[in-house]
Amino acid sequence: MFEFELIKECKDTKARVGLLKTPHGDIETPIFMPVGTQATVKTLSPCELKSINSQIILSNTYHLYLRPGHKLVKEAGGLHKFMNWDRPILTDSGGFQVFSLGDLRTITEEGVEFRSHLDGSKHFLSPEKVMEIENDLGADIIMAFDECAPYPCTHEYAKNSLERTTRWAKRCKDSHQRNDQALFGIIQGGTFKDLRIQSANELIPMDFPGYAIGGLSVGEPNELMYEVLDYLTPIMPKHKPRYLMGVGAPDNIVEGIMRGVDMFDCVLPTRIARNGTAMTRTGKLVVRNAKYKADFTPIDEECTCYACKNFTRAYIRHLIKTDEILGLRLISIHNLHFLLELARESRNAILEDRFIEFRKEFYKKYKI
Amino acid sequence: MFEFELIKECKDTKARVGLLKTPHGDIETPIFMPVGTQATVKTLSPCELKSINSQIILSNTYHLYLRPGHKLVKEAGGLHKFMNWDRPILTDSGGFQVFSLGDLRTITEEGVEFRSHLDGSKHFLSPEKVMEIENDLGADIIMAFDECAPYPCTHEYAKNSLERTTRWAKRCKDSHQRNDQALFGIIQGGTFKDLRIQSANELIPMDFPGYAIGGLSVGEPNELMYEVLDYLTPIMPKHKPRYLMGVGAPDNIVEGIMRGVDMFDCVLPTRIARNGTAMTRTGKLVVRNAKYKADFTPIDEECTCYACKNFTRAYIRHLIKTDEILGLRLISIHNLHFLLELARESRNAILEDRFIEFRKEFYKKYKI
Repeated sequence: MFEFELIKECKDTKARVGLLKTPHGDIETPIFMPVGTQATVKTLSPCELKSINSQIILSNTYHLYLRPGHKLVKEAGGLHKFMNWDRPILTDSGGFQVFSLGDLRTITEEGVEFRSHLDGSKHFLSPEKVMEIENDLGADIIMAFDECAPYPCTHEYAKNSLERTTRWAKRCKDSHQRNDQALFGIIQGGTFKDLRIQSANELIPMDFPGYAIGGLSVGEPNELMYEVLDYLTPIMPKHKPRYLMGVGAPDNIVEGIMRGVDMFDCVLPTRIARNGTAMTRTGKLVVRNAKYKADFTPIDEECTCYACKNFTRAYIRHLIKTDEILGLRLISIHNLHFLLELARESRNAILEDRFIEFRKEFYKKYKI
Repeated sequence: MFEFELIKECKDTKARVGLLKTPHGDIETPIFMPVGTQATVKTLSPCELKSINSQIILSNTYHLYLRPGHKLVKEAGGLHKFMNWDRPILTDSGGFQVFSLGDLRTITEEGVEFRSHLDGSKHFLSPEKVMEIENDLGADIIMAFDECAPYPCTHEYAKNSLERTTRWAKRCKDSHQRNDQALFGIIQGGTFKDLRIQSANELIPMDFPGYAIGGLSVGEPNELMYEVLDYLTPIMPKHKPRYLMGVGAPDNIVEGIMRGVDMFDCVLPTRIARNGTAMTRTGKLVVRNAKYKADFTPIDEECTCYACKNFTRAYIRHLIKTDEILGLRLISIHNLHFLLELARESRNAILEDRFIEFRKEFYKKYKI
């Protein structure tokens, strides 16, 4: 039901091409996964997501637990049916969201007590509870409940977090019920090499069908993120998918792929869209800026997305300036299409033994 | 370039079927026109509008004059190109919006001085200026600059308004430049029979290619609106299209059609969508209500729109409750589809000599 086939390894780098088989279809890796936090990828419809070749989307345990509630989603026939998405889904465990609540939560060995960001109501999430929720939601890939250390943090803090993450991973594994769902473990350890290695060495013997790298892209410099990947991916299982959580800047994706990462997700493309900013091959383009007022060219002349094939910067700027929703939709579709194409082109480059050249070309145009 | 063909008259009522030919295609009447105030029908894309068979959309002179400005739209190649809509467009004259500004405007014989609702900046619209703007926007059908009397108002006020509307209609006609645009006159006169007849008698000799009925659906009871239509449509030219402005409640549309109206427009379907309310054959359905929380049926089982074919009330309610834009999109598409279908079914009923039965069936189910 769940299988990862390693199709090709880059001869010059650690980049690789794979095929991830799930109950709702195959996923060609490397892949970017659009984020649908509340059972909807913000502003877009399932058929638009298919039109840009989204192979898998992500949704969020914390948010769906609070609204509409996992029992309701189960009653609807699971998340796929509830949101009418028949391709693979991955659910985050809510770990990151709960820890981000700061003063609103208390962590103990048993789990996390927290107050809802919506109404202040009290809740408790444990590894077992998270498994119950994720089982009810019914995604193809579900994440273990982890503790994500902030950046920066002390070695001691990061060590405690990763060790608890290991203990919780075991509890998740023990209580996970459905064999049509793949439970991924999450490697923590902050930016400390010894801790990342410790975390990997503790989790790998548990034989999860896939491994995520958590706790990166939380404020550390890019160089530190790349350094962690440099020493971490070589000790991760070769024949299992590797997922770098929360990463979605185009250069981070290219660097992650080069270092052997297979899967990425991030709210960035839809979040900056709502701010009137588009992602392009040359970097960010702030469509709402006055200089595009009478610019009757598309966001990107070479792009084949619905927004670029049909609308001008001037029109999209007008929509953004007048708070019209179509503007958010058009930039969201463009940004997601851009990242999905970036992953697809990387994949083709690896298959055709030209990933190094592809990366070089990427940086010739791209301004961070 | 512009022609109205009267195809069939109902044998029992004043209802009629026509074909309105414009430079951007033919329009089958009776028709409902979705409103795209700011060069976009709120939340929807042009291809979605086509998917629900929108034959013509409406846009607004007042709003486009302020943002992005008519000169910019002209530079873009006109409104059709600017918003990428290749079917017919009708532009309102801005009269209604300007008069709605209340204390922010001063009416003189020359025109209306007003302050922008956006930034308080001072502007002046005259019949000649409105023609310049509408010519630049380039819609297929453009409306004369009129003065819309409020409801209730005195006979004297309504008389002054309609007489000024007549003088302004003449100035519009004199300054209108493009022969690929049809300029419609607007009949005013409030709810006073003598004044409505006076207005019609003054405008009809000017030989506009179409006539609108303005100043209704501004707060008067339905019965008064129907009464005006009862005596007004019989004296309006038979071989010219008749447009009842701002009317979009399902029962008002059926009653308008029965009284010989060909065209309707209203922001209602998209406005109530944003409030979580759907239009159905049995009346309004407030999708956001708690009773639909676990209702896994579509908004309307019999409806063929994208929302009803793919999503449940429970899911749409979740989207509305969590402020997710897809919820607004789905209800908007459903509501517009509903009104477009209502017009199409009315048309078919007239063609098949069963409009009376159709209306009877409509009221059997519909609760106002």
